Amino acid sequence: MKIHIYAARLFILMAGTLIAHSAFSESYPIKPLSDSALKGPLIINKQGSFFVGGQDITSDTLSTMSAFGSKGTITLDQMYVAYQIPVKAKSTSVVLIHGCCLTGKTWESTPDNRMGWNEYFVRRGFPTYVIDQVGRGRSAVNAASQINAVKTNQAPAEKLPTVIAASHEGAWQIFRFGAEYPKTFENQRFPIAAQKGLWQQMVADWYYGLEEPNATPVALSTLSKELKKTVLISHSQSGIFPFNSAKISNDGIAGIISIEPAACPSADSDLTPYLKIPSLVMFGDFVELSTRWAPRLKACREFVTKVNAQGGKAELLVLPEIGIKGNTHMLMQDDNSLELAALLSTWIEKQIASKN
Amino acid sequence: MKIHIYAARLFILMAGTLIAHSAFSESYPIKPLSDSALKGPLIINKQGSFFVGGQDITSDTLSTMSAFGSKGTITLDQMYVAYQIPVKAKSTSVVLIHGCCLTGKTWESTPDNRMGWNEYFVRRGFPTYVIDQVGRGRSAVNAASQINAVKTNQAPAEKLPTVIAASHEGAWQIFRFGAEYPKTFENQRFPIAAQKGLWQQMVADWYYGLEEPNATPVALSTLSKELKKTVLISHSQSGIFPFNSAKISNDGIAGIISIEPAACPSADSDLTPYLKIPSLVMFGDFVELSTRWAPRLKACREFVTKVNAQGGKAELLVLPEIGIKGNTHMLMQDDNSLELAALLSTWIEKQIASKN
Repeated sequence: MKIHIYAARLFILMAGTLIAHSAFSESYPIKPLSDSALKGPLIINKQGSFFVGGQDITSDTLSTMSAFGSKGTITLDQMYVAYQIPVKAKSTSVVLIHGCCLTGKTWESTPDNRMGWNEYFVRRGFPTYVIDQVGRGRSAVNAASQINAVKTNQAPAEKLPTVIAASHEGAWQIFRFGAEYPKTFENQRFPIAAQKGLWQQMVADWYYGLEEPNATPVALSTLSKELKKTVLISHSQSGIFPFNSAKISNDGIAGIISIEPAACPSADSDLTPYLKIPSLVMFGDFVELSTRWAPRLKACREFVTKVNAQGGKAELLVLPEIGIKGNTHMLMQDDNSLELAALLSTWIEKQIASKN
Repeated sequence: MKIHIYAARLFILMAGTLIAHSAFSESYPIKPLSDSALKGPLIINKQGSFFVGGQDITSDTLSTMSAFGSKGTITLDQMYVAYQIPVKAKSTSVVLIHGCCLTGKTWESTPDNRMGWNEYFVRRGFPTYVIDQVGRGRSAVNAASQINAVKTNQAPAEKLPTVIAASHEGAWQIFRFGAEYPKTFENQRFPIAAQKGLWQQMVADWYYGLEEPNATPVALSTLSKELKKTVLISHSQSGIFPFNSAKISNDGIAGIISIEPAACPSADSDLTPYLKIPSLVMFGDFVELSTRWAPRLKACREFVTKVNAQGGKAELLVLPEIGIKGNTHMLMQDDNSLELAALLSTWIEKQIASKN
């Protein structure tokens, strides 16, 4: 098993030298935060939360309890946003967008209680916005109406929405902690001893049953316009959202960072919406060991190549190709999470924040 | 209509002089925060989030999608907690516990974008913890398993969980913005022009279908022990939770503030668990105009009287009885929300924080 993995990783490293990549470490010497900026008190100029979007619908199956009426109006499709703006803030902000079966908690304190990216970016000077996808966490979903319609025999069982929960065993593979639960890949970096802290984060996911086009990229487009100059940082299921937002409008989207996207836009699609926005697609380690992720990386590579061929400015960063090894799919929680946040911050500062 | 309301309010004011109450304004001259403490940068010593509790269950109806397995383990019953600890923090902390159909967002920026209580208490020097009830917001609920069991015909429709959504029209009455939607009580204080910001906050509520005893007061008990000296501040549906936590153990619960509780403990029950913890039950205005709330206030009055008769230290504060008029059920979002936060802070500082 070990030999097999090492062989595969050696192949990846060798492949990395053959395939065009960003030569990240040469282009962007990674600038860390000073100890005092990282560890001193956090000084906030303004913080708060709000919602973007939302539409009113009426329903007559809101409740089966006499204490609450069954008929009336509710608001759906809004996106929860929590933010912190540091003193001496940069004009470029970042928006952190979580993936499947998770909420904005993804970016907060890690399972082993280290600083989350949400705070790191604030300490780095970026106004930082953390969302809960529409239909997840603090962003409402149409659960009551849909369930009660079936519970009261006004709709058949097959009309129940598509809702999934990722099991520990399934997530273990998808997040590439190891080939199968509970085995781990050699030198993987997720804090396995604190895994309970990840399982506690996971929630039921209504995404696959929501109406298309999904309301989150729409809300992200609205938010970007308000923020004027923001970098949308997405992950996994939400990986494609910033690109979908850019298709609606480029306004306000100063950059896209897509971390291990479940999909990049098809290389054969109209790439015009993505040509003017610097984008970075980042993958961790062990990708070639995963039948789920290897084809996604390949498709993203094709997308990046095509965008650049058409005059765009896209980069693909596969971490082991620049010598950063062991990162899982949940790399914002891995043991080197703040080094990766420094890496992304450096990219933003170099590619976007330093420009008008 | 106006005359009817004024008459009712006059009656309440007169009743206030007849019924024993806390004479709050004499006992506790309300100490406001200085402008600089309220408006300068917010200086945080430590912030983050974590979960309390949670148990693993197995299910074979986690998914109906081939991309996600149907069988496996998930974690439920954990409670999400976000916290901020200011520099120069008091040793007494506060925990903010939201009510029906809402999440921890309740306590953050108001619908009209004023400072939330979560930030006010931090600026006041209290380490401040905001939770999402078990099964709400960022705290998982068993949605996928329960829905998919019925969707795949492994369980009958009546086995679907009890889930409700409060309509705008229903919430309008319950929150006492007016007698019925869209009429408002004269001089009510909720920022009605920004009502959309409240409707966006509301989520489906699985509480009434969760197993008893509810896991949130259990998790609050665990959290209180960890915090060592905390004041549990609950609202509405969660109003009774701090009392239920105190029944499990008094450890760490230095005080209870129950805001417009849907229920106080029965005056006829064993009151021993509540005798050693200073408690304050607070109601807003227009209560006697509501058939839902008037009996609850009456029952809480009886509870407070009985606790004191047995040597406890409970207070009932009905805001109009001390001259603060117009507050709705959502008083942490009313236009005088920070004055009420100052009032509660003063009570905590006087009754709890100043004592060992």
